[in-house]
Amino acid sequence: MHRRRGFFLSGLFFSGICVLASSASLHAADVPQVSAAEPIAIKLRDAAMRGDSVAWDFVSELTTRIGPRPAGSANEHAAAAWAAKKLKDYGFENVRVEEFPITAWNRGTESGEIVAPSRQPLVVNALGFAPPTPAQGVEGEVVIFGTLDDLIAAQTGSLAGKIAMVNQRMVRAQDGAGYGPVVRARALGAIEAAKRGAIAFLLRSVATDSRRLPHTGAARFAGGKIPVPAFALSVPDADQIERLAALGEKVRVHLFSSASYVADAHSQNIIGEIRGGERPDEVIVLGAHMDSWDLGTGAIDDAAGTAIIAAAGKLIGDLPGKPRRTVRVVMFGSEEIPQPDEKKLGGPSYIATRTADLPKHIITGESDFGADRVYAVALPQNSFASPFGVSLMKVLTPIGVIPSQASSKDAGSDVAPMVKAGVPSFVLLQDGSHYFDLHHSADDTLDKIDRAQLNQNVAAWVSLVYLAAQSDADFREISAAPSKPSDE
Amino acid sequence: MHRRRGFFLSGLFFSGICVLASSASLHAADVPQVSAAEPIAIKLRDAAMRGDSVAWDFVSELTTRIGPRPAGSANEHAAAAWAAKKLKDYGFENVRVEEFPITAWNRGTESGEIVAPSRQPLVVNALGFAPPTPAQGVEGEVVIFGTLDDLIAAQTGSLAGKIAMVNQRMVRAQDGAGYGPVVRARALGAIEAAKRGAIAFLLRSVATDSRRLPHTGAARFAGGKIPVPAFALSVPDADQIERLAALGEKVRVHLFSSASYVADAHSQNIIGEIRGGERPDEVIVLGAHMDSWDLGTGAIDDAAGTAIIAAAGKLIGDLPGKPRRTVRVVMFGSEEIPQPDEKKLGGPSYIATRTADLPKHIITGESDFGADRVYAVALPQNSFASPFGVSLMKVLTPIGVIPSQASSKDAGSDVAPMVKAGVPSFVLLQDGSHYFDLHHSADDTLDKIDRAQLNQNVAAWVSLVYLAAQSDADFREISAAPSKPSDE
Repeated sequence: MHRRRGFFLSGLFFSGICVLASSASLHAADVPQVSAAEPIAIKLRDAAMRGDSVAWDFVSELTTRIGPRPAGSANEHAAAAWAAKKLKDYGFENVRVEEFPITAWNRGTESGEIVAPSRQPLVVNALGFAPPTPAQGVEGEVVIFGTLDDLIAAQTGSLAGKIAMVNQRMVRAQDGAGYGPVVRARALGAIEAAKRGAIAFLLRSVATDSRRLPHTGAARFAGGKIPVPAFALSVPDADQIERLAALGEKVRVHLFSSASYVADAHSQNIIGEIRGGERPDEVIVLGAHMDSWDLGTGAIDDAAGTAIIAAAGKLIGDLPGKPRRTVRVVMFGSEEIPQPDEKKLGGPSYIATRTADLPKHIITGESDFGADRVYAVALPQNSFASPFGVSLMKVLTPIGVIPSQASSKDAGSDVAPMVKAGVPSFVLLQDGSHYFDLHHSADDTLDKIDRAQLNQNVAAWVSLVYLAAQSDADFREISAAPSKPSDE
Repeated sequence: MHRRRGFFLSGLFFSGICVLASSASLHAADVPQVSAAEPIAIKLRDAAMRGDSVAWDFVSELTTRIGPRPAGSANEHAAAAWAAKKLKDYGFENVRVEEFPITAWNRGTESGEIVAPSRQPLVVNALGFAPPTPAQGVEGEVVIFGTLDDLIAAQTGSLAGKIAMVNQRMVRAQDGAGYGPVVRARALGAIEAAKRGAIAFLLRSVATDSRRLPHTGAARFAGGKIPVPAFALSVPDADQIERLAALGEKVRVHLFSSASYVADAHSQNIIGEIRGGERPDEVIVLGAHMDSWDLGTGAIDDAAGTAIIAAAGKLIGDLPGKPRRTVRVVMFGSEEIPQPDEKKLGGPSYIATRTADLPKHIITGESDFGADRVYAVALPQNSFASPFGVSLMKVLTPIGVIPSQASSKDAGSDVAPMVKAGVPSFVLLQDGSHYFDLHHSADDTLDKIDRAQLNQNVAAWVSLVYLAAQSDADFREISAAPSKPSDE
């Protein structure tokens, strides 16, 4: 996951069950469709709960056979070819790989060391797309800031020859709400440090664990580049520098990176469909991303997401009859990376050639927050009161999913361009309590995925997607209606 | 911790509380001494439980200011000078640093990569004292063995040009019993692989975690050397190779290490005393080791041990009067490393100059199993029935310590030469459930130490040591008596 904005910040005033009952009649035309679909949705849900889906095999083989899949790399290309074949084998139609050009980035060798007051190795990883150091590395005294705002408050020139470090701790939160306040420093720290004369930037990893594994991620471009070398420190390494400084010591650090860029790389979206029988032009779009950071094998970010949407689609495709609407899975390329021109990424590339089709995109959602269980669902405004919403909660409640007041518009960065273009969206909120223990680190590997939670996740996805595919619901129309005040 | 033998394997049939009562009269001469000491032991225990000891400050400053302390390194020397000053500041007497020569080993740069069927980085660390690879590295197909015995069963020459890998999983156990069955492969794997033609040896880390951090440790010498380069894989990396092979792929791996040796290095033991007032020549020896592996900061292995014994000694030294017997702390050098000649290590060096004094070594114990709580105590045979043992259990029972049936002779590798020379020993058994999540890895850092458990650990140590120092107990005599059968 790489989010450019606050995560689940906008609120939706959820109207409660009394409104559900009173509003259901508004969309009575849809009732026969979704009522008929309910028992099948329940069967699909239960099959997924039992593990009768391809999710585990998909995520296991992808992360094992291919491993890390950095945007634009040979591994990302191989993963696309592998996934396209897999989707065909699974019975998806119209399987295609749509390429787009990007600038790629290669992590080189890298190292960090405290050189004074004693020599101690540091565990560091360059932030994504950060420039290399000179061949001899960079060395300087560390100046520690509690937050990015503290760094911004430092005077111009005050960091000349120094290495700026932001040491803000991340708060663990089920919905990932701890991410937004700290990831700003990853995005902007190098830019703000350089403005004040710093020769490099060090970031306490945006993470909730305390392992000797840094968490990388994208830094933001300014004027087409990231101005100084930038590194994530593992949490214990950040603590160590802080404690040394607290002992009254000036802490000098040496940093090295041989990172490099590939200007003429390409990435790709992988697309497959379970074609609808009655309304094939009406499309439910399931998103996830195929690229990953390079340190781990991208198991929770986001092989799990690709596995979940592939598994949900295949369960529907394996039914005796076609769904009414088309179910389309899109495995986006280059979700993780920054580009001087963001139009080059997977999400914008997808909509660039589909302007005319977007009005027929019924609803979209993205799986990009790990493999742990779904605990809530957010829908377009008023939708819980629709026949679709009522049926959905009947199917999801028994597997531990509640309606959420969160905005359904924060659906994921790959589908964000669709959402911005007016496509309705849903969010299946996952338990992210442990997500940031692993996110963007070498520890993002298959062994961290709990199969029972993965199965429940697929169950939630296939339930929602099948009911949406069988429904007549027009979420644009539903959410355009004035919302009723709650009786509660 | 680095143990050369099975861990807590020998059993002692513990005789139960009925025997305690009936045997106490055997050593009635000691009763007035230990009875008088009990209330003071309880005060010392409670002070330690409250955190009124130097343990946390010692372990925090040592691991922060000095960091990793590989045997023979500048950091190990600096740690010795730092600790000697600390002991003097704490009021210890006769503080001295006793040097001895060793061959040291420097980890160079190192790397591992799966090169076929796809390119994927591996997280590897060279095993301690393993030789470097050639400059271009070594590359070969991996042959996976479930256990060391499976590798030994392979025919001579069958591994020519191959890389042998032992993939045995370690069992989590509170007393560390899972270590013995797997650490054999770390000790002997390279030797056995080389005998069969292998060009390198890969070991699934001897560990109970699943993080991308390998656990290093010593391999054994054969004919004065380790025959081929040898590396520990992190547990997820070992799983990845196993899964790739299970997909029917031949897995080729490239390995590189630039490790090197320093033939004329030295290490040192750091010694300090709280001198006894009545029987100063009778010595209670508290051991721990100052050297650590290089990847982490050696917080649980074994800065915690040095902190625990320093804290216990200082609590006794801070009492208004002197203890009856002398309390001696010894922070050994070079515990972790193998040497062609084991006489060069810290434990043998300590006894080499003390042959005449050893009969006056009343009892010894070592703290070298992390910083978690003490849950049991093992004493020399018959000692639970002595006045000392009865008092000890009165003081330890309220903080959750039970008498153990384990042999008190498996007291730690540094004190093993003393024990072999006839010095009685005790073991304060610690909860090692999580010890092998961290042991010998980069994750052995201060943040992993739980202060409440560390305090309880110091409380157990100071209680036992103070009671032994105030007692007249002669453990040689006590354990020489025939043990009574249990009434149970």
